[in-house]
Amino acid sequence: MQIDRLIRTVRELGNPTALGLDTKLEYVPKDFAAPHLDAGGPPEAVFAFNAKLLAALRDVIGCVKIQAAYYEMLGPCGMSCLLKTINEARSLGYVVIVDAKRGDIGSTAAAYSAAYLTEKSPFRADFLTVNPYFGTDGMAPFLDDCQKSGSGLFVLVKTSNPSGKEFQDIITDDGQPLYERVAKHVSEWGSRLIGEEGYSSVGAVVGATYPKQGAGLRRKMPNTFFLLPGYGAQGALAAQLASCFDASGGGAVVAASRSIICAHMLSGTRDFAQSARAEALRMKDDLSKILRLAR
Amino acid sequence: MQIDRLIRTVRELGNPTALGLDTKLEYVPKDFAAPHLDAGGPPEAVFAFNAKLLAALRDVIGCVKIQAAYYEMLGPCGMSCLLKTINEARSLGYVVIVDAKRGDIGSTAAAYSAAYLTEKSPFRADFLTVNPYFGTDGMAPFLDDCQKSGSGLFVLVKTSNPSGKEFQDIITDDGQPLYERVAKHVSEWGSRLIGEEGYSSVGAVVGATYPKQGAGLRRKMPNTFFLLPGYGAQGALAAQLASCFDASGGGAVVAASRSIICAHMLSGTRDFAQSARAEALRMKDDLSKILRLAR
Repeated sequence: MQIDRLIRTVRELGNPTALGLDTKLEYVPKDFAAPHLDAGGPPEAVFAFNAKLLAALRDVIGCVKIQAAYYEMLGPCGMSCLLKTINEARSLGYVVIVDAKRGDIGSTAAAYSAAYLTEKSPFRADFLTVNPYFGTDGMAPFLDDCQKSGSGLFVLVKTSNPSGKEFQDIITDDGQPLYERVAKHVSEWGSRLIGEEGYSSVGAVVGATYPKQGAGLRRKMPNTFFLLPGYGAQGALAAQLASCFDASGGGAVVAASRSIICAHMLSGTRDFAQSARAEALRMKDDLSKILRLAR
Repeated sequence: MQIDRLIRTVRELGNPTALGLDTKLEYVPKDFAAPHLDAGGPPEAVFAFNAKLLAALRDVIGCVKIQAAYYEMLGPCGMSCLLKTINEARSLGYVVIVDAKRGDIGSTAAAYSAAYLTEKSPFRADFLTVNPYFGTDGMAPFLDDCQKSGSGLFVLVKTSNPSGKEFQDIITDDGQPLYERVAKHVSEWGSRLIGEEGYSSVGAVVGATYPKQGAGLRRKMPNTFFLLPGYGAQGALAAQLASCFDASGGGAVVAASRSIICAHMLSGTRDFAQSARAEALRMKDDLSKILRLAR
């Protein structure tokens, strides 16, 4: 099961970072991009940038989160770039999360699942992020395919953005906020998909920007692995995140995209891979505090 | 604004049907598919099928809803097929809804919006379906682009599937179910985008399978146009839908996919376009009851 592989990869590298490849053409240094733009346009330049980052970071980071939207906006060739980026990451041994927030009624969810989560999927991911608004029958095809292929999900529970609270924090008739009702379903959906490491294939997206709520969810969801977006560019600090991890310093990965892949834009250096590597190592060191605090 | 164009198209044809192109290869008759499969594989066969349906139905139906999932599952070439289907429908004058249920934090929502809703979008749609779970700041980029380009949205409010009620019908602290809280936001998001026909560019997805709730929403959302999925294959009947329309028999379109595009599989005839046309005319006649009831 991919959830076990994710947990072991994080443990081996001592680094719970998920590298966010939310790559926009404007992030790619012009001189690096030029020959690729000539050869195949923006998707080719984005892929070359991703590939260089993936090669430079493999001994530091074990997990990548690829944001589908940035590839979709480049059209069908952008989707080829998504596919190539997924395959490049997989061939290097990364655990690959495709961050697409898909979700629909059952028959359509089955089509999305066929796109991402089966052995024959064109965009073969280890994990897919999904939106729970359709409830259990919209989740069923994803869960079935996870059972068959060993892939996993990260279901939106508490998102990292300020307005997420508009609906997610509404207090419901049992006194709990909506996101805790969703969390309870996420635990149930995962209950038949628990791996050897004690976590299920059905993870939860919990915004790193809400560490207090994250801590509450950590206690209530002992078998649910967390994907924590919002570190770095969105403002969350490592020390605040300790309580989103389990007692062994496991149970979660922290996603960071712009802070790593755009590090060269801040530092003003031309070698984007080295800048990304320096920031990845700094983040690893920063997150090691979490692991120490959690223990 | 595309919302005005949609309303006028429905009025001119006297038909509030939205043709759902949720096309799977298995729906395409084998003898029709064969040469296209040889030429370009499944996406080419699906496109040829879609193109023939679009040509055969233009004088009956004015609006198409293209389900992104069925194209995504075919990989990058499937996304080319999505693009070609969008362009074919637009060139024939259809109002095009891309049914993709996208949604994310603001920066990522901007990328999805760039993919579908701007003048330069690769997948240039007239409308996009979106998921509201991220709240207002996740909607803002979509709303901004709708203001600039005249495109529109259909936001998930009350979905057509049985499990939709798990979260959407939860009673919240003001006594209303969650979907009515979402509905209130949808009205507000659309309040600065009202067209000449009195409806805003921000529509709502309201399952035709929940006509009672649809009637309540119709009263509370006088400026919100509805996309009603669930007619036909999912079991909703025309007569139940009358109260989801406004007093003039307007204000909504009814999506139907399998009942039209798979009509040949039920009738056993080889001419799928003629079978689809016969079912489209039957559905138009069926829906005309709504228009009469509403008046």
